Amino acid sequence: MKITMAHGSGGESTSKLIRDVFSKHFDNEYLSKLEDSAVVPSSEMIAMTTDSFVVTPLEFPGGDIGRLSVCGTVNDLLMSGSVPKYITCGCILEEGLDISLLNRVIASMAKTAKEAGVLIVTGDTKVIENRGGEGGLIINTSGVGLIPDVHIIPSPSLLSDGDVIIVSGNLGDHHAAILGKRMGIQSDILSDNAPLVDIVTNLMNSGINIHAMRDVTRGGLATVLNEFAESSAVSIELFEEYLPVSSAVSNFCQILGLDPLYMGNEGKMVLSIPESDSEKALGIIKRSKYGENAQIVGTVKKDDAAPCVFLRTRIGGKRIVGPLYGEGLPRIC
Amino acid sequence: MKITMAHGSGGESTSKLIRDVFSKHFDNEYLSKLEDSAVVPSSEMIAMTTDSFVVTPLEFPGGDIGRLSVCGTVNDLLMSGSVPKYITCGCILEEGLDISLLNRVIASMAKTAKEAGVLIVTGDTKVIENRGGEGGLIINTSGVGLIPDVHIIPSPSLLSDGDVIIVSGNLGDHHAAILGKRMGIQSDILSDNAPLVDIVTNLMNSGINIHAMRDVTRGGLATVLNEFAESSAVSIELFEEYLPVSSAVSNFCQILGLDPLYMGNEGKMVLSIPESDSEKALGIIKRSKYGENAQIVGTVKKDDAAPCVFLRTRIGGKRIVGPLYGEGLPRIC
Repeated sequence: MKITMAHGSGGESTSKLIRDVFSKHFDNEYLSKLEDSAVVPSSEMIAMTTDSFVVTPLEFPGGDIGRLSVCGTVNDLLMSGSVPKYITCGCILEEGLDISLLNRVIASMAKTAKEAGVLIVTGDTKVIENRGGEGGLIINTSGVGLIPDVHIIPSPSLLSDGDVIIVSGNLGDHHAAILGKRMGIQSDILSDNAPLVDIVTNLMNSGINIHAMRDVTRGGLATVLNEFAESSAVSIELFEEYLPVSSAVSNFCQILGLDPLYMGNEGKMVLSIPESDSEKALGIIKRSKYGENAQIVGTVKKDDAAPCVFLRTRIGGKRIVGPLYGEGLPRIC
Repeated sequence: MKITMAHGSGGESTSKLIRDVFSKHFDNEYLSKLEDSAVVPSSEMIAMTTDSFVVTPLEFPGGDIGRLSVCGTVNDLLMSGSVPKYITCGCILEEGLDISLLNRVIASMAKTAKEAGVLIVTGDTKVIENRGGEGGLIINTSGVGLIPDVHIIPSPSLLSDGDVIIVSGNLGDHHAAILGKRMGIQSDILSDNAPLVDIVTNLMNSGINIHAMRDVTRGGLATVLNEFAESSAVSIELFEEYLPVSSAVSNFCQILGLDPLYMGNEGKMVLSIPESDSEKALGIIKRSKYGENAQIVGTVKKDDAAPCVFLRTRIGGKRIVGPLYGEGLPRIC
């Protein structure tokens, strides 16, 4: 069964698709009302985020666009210091999309939402004309996170002299998994698409003073750290030997001439933490789900070089690491 | 200047586009932080909604996809009994999209948000490959509305015996404007895309007991009323002579064989209100912005015919009005 334009008309065919695919997997007390808005309990302050996912292929080693879309939005909410709670799901279906594929993707969204402890409370479905090829799928997930009563909101502008930079795991996995799949390269590389709820919750509960945190997505670690350096007017020094990269991704990068510093992840984060808390934080991350390969990778200085990001190479050289310019790998998220 | 794949890389080109187009128009204290999430004040209960807009053409008589996207989300939030407050903006840009057109659309979103009293607090931009033709644009707007402390949430399941059905203005304008533009038909028909904030606020402040309200969009009045009848197990009788349709849209429909009951609007709503409050409600709507053509169009009964929607025709006949089946006009919102 394929998606047709009638599935987007707003009439009976749309209702049937929503019942048979979306409501079936997303069932919860708010969504089940199937109204245009969901009314949910909130807190005094909330975080809001939105992200559209246009990745191709729709299913890839280690994940799919459904899991990716939930992880992306959950992770954005976590990074603001909020507790992710509610997600909306806006689907753009291209005519010709296989309904069993759609069903798998929506089931994967539901499973990932459950893992991350969020509810998908409302949604919207539109259909666009097929313009050649298999029918595609674009997903927008927007989300609301509740801000705890007592909180410090981490910010890219809060990096301080003497901070330590921690990365929660191996760089480049999602980017390499997508690229490998597109190029038909056989490898064991899986996308790291994962919700970072456990890592962030454990860190927050420990009382560690997180100055800044950000998930490492499009543009890679280099782009995030350049934003940090710019916002806080600091210089950041990275140590190449400590950057966590799996041997499979490392080999993949060498063959294709890619730099893991610019590759996107979908289940990794970077933090800036006072040096005094850094070993404790590293231990907490390593014991959390999806944090086992965490590493301290750099240091922060308030000096004349700021704002700047440097890389101290394995052979002792030092080079400037700029943000991503021009075109990275398109449509990886 | 056209959109290229580099604008979607997450690097410097993406940042420049966001600065030059989005931040310029959407400027506010929350968005200006340009983080992945916006942290905003909230209330004990909130309404959440999401809607993706795939309309073609992107600009049409009386409006554009930007105005439409804000109105759609604002109106959905209003229908839940909430006060619309924050909107997110997720843009899917197709390679080749004219940047000056994008700029006009984003300016129109900003202007409409201001009119509706909402802030666009966070956004996301992705670029997809061009697959022939001019570059397209899809916009997702998700939103949060605050629920007042003392409130009754209207619901399609709350229609009662003796209620009166009120429509806030002329039917079919948006649908006819889009169709006319696509077919190159010269006419004075303008889309009615508008935020219903004034009508709903005035009704809520008046203390009128609104049993159900819904904006009339895809699928038209017939589809909304069938949902109402189904959810509340009532029968609804409409009077053809009272259905408000402009003479331009009426002529347009006669030529093309269209039925205004199934045509989409983007600035109209339908309410179910106790008969005792109906004249007062009608007066309030007529004095509100975008409500001047409001009409009482039908009545609600709890009888053996339920759930059903009937139309009493001008010549005294009675026919069943079902929901929209199959394919309505695609991509009108």
